[in-house]
Amino acid sequence: MASAAAHGKGLLLKADNIANAFRDEIQRSLATRQKAPTLVGILSTSQSPSRYYAEFTKKQCEALGVNFVLKETGAALNKDNAEREELAEGEGVEEAIIDANDDDSVDGIMVYYPIFGVQQDQYLQQVVSPLKDVEGLHFKFHYNLYHNIRFVQPKALISSVAPTDIPPQPADDSPPEGTVKSILPCTPLAIVKCLEHIGVYNKILPYGDRAYGRTVTVINRSEVVGRPLAALLANDGARVFSVDVDSIQEYTKRPKSTDSPSFAKYHPRHIVHPSTLSLQECLGLSDVVISAVPNADYKVKTEWLKDGCVAMNVAAEKNFEKDVREKVSKPAGLFI
Amino acid sequence: MASAAAHGKGLLLKADNIANAFRDEIQRSLATRQKAPTLVGILSTSQSPSRYYAEFTKKQCEALGVNFVLKETGAALNKDNAEREELAEGEGVEEAIIDANDDDSVDGIMVYYPIFGVQQDQYLQQVVSPLKDVEGLHFKFHYNLYHNIRFVQPKALISSVAPTDIPPQPADDSPPEGTVKSILPCTPLAIVKCLEHIGVYNKILPYGDRAYGRTVTVINRSEVVGRPLAALLANDGARVFSVDVDSIQEYTKRPKSTDSPSFAKYHPRHIVHPSTLSLQECLGLSDVVISAVPNADYKVKTEWLKDGCVAMNVAAEKNFEKDVREKVSKPAGLFI
Repeated sequence: MASAAAHGKGLLLKADNIANAFRDEIQRSLATRQKAPTLVGILSTSQSPSRYYAEFTKKQCEALGVNFVLKETGAALNKDNAEREELAEGEGVEEAIIDANDDDSVDGIMVYYPIFGVQQDQYLQQVVSPLKDVEGLHFKFHYNLYHNIRFVQPKALISSVAPTDIPPQPADDSPPEGTVKSILPCTPLAIVKCLEHIGVYNKILPYGDRAYGRTVTVINRSEVVGRPLAALLANDGARVFSVDVDSIQEYTKRPKSTDSPSFAKYHPRHIVHPSTLSLQECLGLSDVVISAVPNADYKVKTEWLKDGCVAMNVAAEKNFEKDVREKVSKPAGLFI
Repeated sequence: MASAAAHGKGLLLKADNIANAFRDEIQRSLATRQKAPTLVGILSTSQSPSRYYAEFTKKQCEALGVNFVLKETGAALNKDNAEREELAEGEGVEEAIIDANDDDSVDGIMVYYPIFGVQQDQYLQQVVSPLKDVEGLHFKFHYNLYHNIRFVQPKALISSVAPTDIPPQPADDSPPEGTVKSILPCTPLAIVKCLEHIGVYNKILPYGDRAYGRTVTVINRSEVVGRPLAALLANDGARVFSVDVDSIQEYTKRPKSTDSPSFAKYHPRHIVHPSTLSLQECLGLSDVVISAVPNADYKVKTEWLKDGCVAMNVAAEKNFEKDVREKVSKPAGLFI
């Protein structure tokens, strides 16, 4: 929703309002179930953003009619226990995940990261059963995303071997019989939902190709946000520049030649090439700029942005300069 | 093998000589097979240490009677192709892994890392089928190591869900019927083999507890070397200090109390506690110091080491000071 009219400044959109459509969809879906599902949230640190997020999840679940159970472990328990020795950050988190995996009354699991740091957290993401992983952070879901496999047989999720018999991918977003949607990693999916809301995805184009014609720069190439997001947008038809500290790559489903070894016989999906463009050149071409740099000092230069582009800040820190709304002020200009 | 006698200076051991016993074991095992196994090595970068390692693997395989097939892709192909456009670092590596997974004539797969950086490489390690992963870098093997699950049914390897029915773990290192040894991540295993060779593991103690009584400091807590190594040593009975840039933890199978939430009902395995000791205090207590810090400027202070300790350098860079052999010069002193 636009919180500022288009007189001079770009529209400012907040994600919360975009989420309303999905709340309605979830409630309609829940109404068809006999029993409310149960989501377990596992909080194992003393970090206040994680506790805030856990409380937010609880509130949202209760409003929607999902049972939410907060499981606290490790340093998350210290607040109520001044008497005994302090528990460590992350202590017991892996055991809490295993318990929730094994508990038939639990339908979904959500773990509040960061806990131990990027590598060990990536290990923990594999401990969550892919059958209960509501955040889509298990390797299986990343693999499917990178390979543009949108629908899977549920049994494929419980195999640690990559699928060789991929079901044919359909022409719209209804799962073919016997398949379910492969869950997409939560943050990249949320970003795509915002881009759909504001019309960057073009509904008159065929399903699976609705970002065609758009050029997008994604700044950050982590396995949690930047790389899956770039792949997702490219699989949907966009030309994507993936920017990280030491390199710029181009992700596209439309390679100039098909003799690349990456193209060969594999499932139709994006391929990746190094780009010779500078960040300034990428930004000058981009209809959408998404920045997710976890550094308060990092700023995307407003003067490098294309007039009327969509600028989206995904980091907790502000990655855009204060004057960004001046630049995105043309009719299509949006700042999310 | 000692390359210097014990007159004043600590023994210097090189890993190559320690490896000979395992070469013999492999050859005896190969002699019982009808057909030589095939190992595919996948080289996708232009980095010379990786090429050197690939050539070394080839030589070793040929000497042992293992078929070695080098699969080059991406930037590894640039050297022979001055005429066409350069291929990117890592291009085609994921597809090469998938081909080798699907190829019934391939028994084992080895990928030459680093390729894209820690996070994306950790993704690639999950693409390798656990049935062909000779390096033990798949999540399944890390999970088994951390949980002290030493033997598995092969079918458990192809499930992406963690095992709930763990076979009873035996009293020696022979796999119970229907099970195989769970492969251990290669670098931590190699370090344990060195420690066994020099008697840090005590053969008169029961299997699974042979590092009992030893105190070890491991400097580095990555998911590839430091954390699995600390867990492995602690699961074998050692008291381990795991040191990383921002914290020191103690890993032990012998917690002071068993009411910790991590201890509870889970498989007997190490538990982790924050340590209040400084690095200097840890080193002063340690019979073995293993350093794997990928930084040429990092040095373990010789003056902090205990007389006669075992100092082991695992990094490509030299993590110990030049005078380390003076300190490890007491009878048991070794520098590997």
